[in-house]
Amino acid sequence: MSVPRGSLYLVPNTLDFGVAAQAGPIDDVLPAAVIRAAARLTHWVAENAKTTRAFLKRVDAVVPLAQPLQALHIVELPRPAKGTRNAPAPDLAALLAPALAGHDIGLISEAGLPAVADPGAALVQAAHAAGIPVVALSGPSSLVLALAASGLNGQSFAFVGYLPVDAAARATRIRELEALSRREGQTQLMIETPYRNEALLGALLAHLQPGTRLSVSCGLTLPGGFTRTDSVQTWNARLAKLPADVPVVFSLLAG
Amino acid sequence: MSVPRGSLYLVPNTLDFGVAAQAGPIDDVLPAAVIRAAARLTHWVAENAKTTRAFLKRVDAVVPLAQPLQALHIVELPRPAKGTRNAPAPDLAALLAPALAGHDIGLISEAGLPAVADPGAALVQAAHAAGIPVVALSGPSSLVLALAASGLNGQSFAFVGYLPVDAAARATRIRELEALSRREGQTQLMIETPYRNEALLGALLAHLQPGTRLSVSCGLTLPGGFTRTDSVQTWNARLAKLPADVPVVFSLLAG
Repeated sequence: MSVPRGSLYLVPNTLDFGVAAQAGPIDDVLPAAVIRAAARLTHWVAENAKTTRAFLKRVDAVVPLAQPLQALHIVELPRPAKGTRNAPAPDLAALLAPALAGHDIGLISEAGLPAVADPGAALVQAAHAAGIPVVALSGPSSLVLALAASGLNGQSFAFVGYLPVDAAARATRIRELEALSRREGQTQLMIETPYRNEALLGALLAHLQPGTRLSVSCGLTLPGGFTRTDSVQTWNARLAKLPADVPVVFSLLAG
Repeated sequence: MSVPRGSLYLVPNTLDFGVAAQAGPIDDVLPAAVIRAAARLTHWVAENAKTTRAFLKRVDAVVPLAQPLQALHIVELPRPAKGTRNAPAPDLAALLAPALAGHDIGLISEAGLPAVADPGAALVQAAHAAGIPVVALSGPSSLVLALAASGLNGQSFAFVGYLPVDAAARATRIRELEALSRREGQTQLMIETPYRNEALLGALLAHLQPGTRLSVSCGLTLPGGFTRTDSVQTWNARLAKLPADVPVVFSLLAG
């Protein structure tokens, strides 16, 4: 008789990166059922094993882990080779072997939902190919929280990831996104490495039209987190410094 | 001395539309802190007052409401006029008056997060204009759960809402979205009224290229919910009936 397959659970992490000064109780952002599910899982595939152990300690403080932390199987997701656009790497099958042996597997990122603006999609794809059920558990997504709080169009929106670092290429991309936003009435969302937040804000304010609305969400779900939405004109008249150490989501909608 | 302003809280709802057969405990999908915040709010702006009262009864079963249900102020969001693309309606200021008088206000949809694939963005925009802080609380988003579970590209994706109902216009739009997906490597997400799920699936399978990957997420977070991702070719070889009574998210990525 064959063993029933395990499932691949996509387990949301908090958005605080476990930083002590920012970390509130995990039940601020994670449902009780998700914390219970995380406590039960013994096999994990992680973006980062160290931060996953820190996450599981916080879970253990609310719901005791089914096995001691040291006994859990935690393997790191291989970083995808550049330019392969989610091509399944050859060793993903090994990561899914526990599911074929009947164990549920948790996939977890350093923050937020795995496979959304984060690695993991190739593993999910491999799970579908292997007939392993995939179950996404509800948790915080900085993108969707930023979009909701922006007041920009939530009926049509796109997340485009990072903009080019090169100044000229970035300016071109900003104008391209603004033209697309105007044509489709579509909100465009992007992110940046925290220490470059200020530079991206400067570039957006320099290259967008005055009437385009720009929303900046800083440190959502963290103490002091906020969302500001204004026209580019108003942003330029009343500039603000952005924190260089928290995640920021930028959204624009052409007027 | 002036009264400190209240904030506008964007309160997530469950994804089960309160349907008894599907409704699990709300802590399956809502964090404890969000349930506590909802229990505390006395002023609400709702997509639908009746479903909001049903939601608050479920909250009350976990955390007692600060005031009896009958004593809460619940006003419905005016439906935006067609074709105005989020133009602020004249009476939104009245809906925000309690915040200017120092009361926190909750904005809530029938399901999921307000202002994301749902009404509410115009009220959020009016709050920003009035200097009322906007705080989005973490909860389930069918779009982002479907995207995570799809295994399609989560580094670049767009939500495009509903497709045209007219068959010819819908076929054109499907080919347009596939071309865009191929050019940008961008996952395209769309939704449909539940009783038209089957028709949209048929149209997608008829008009997409065989190598394009199509993901269908049915009833996420509900009992029996699932995500299937396959090439159009495989979908056509192994057809499946979709439930006509649960929300479905369709996602495509050109191969």
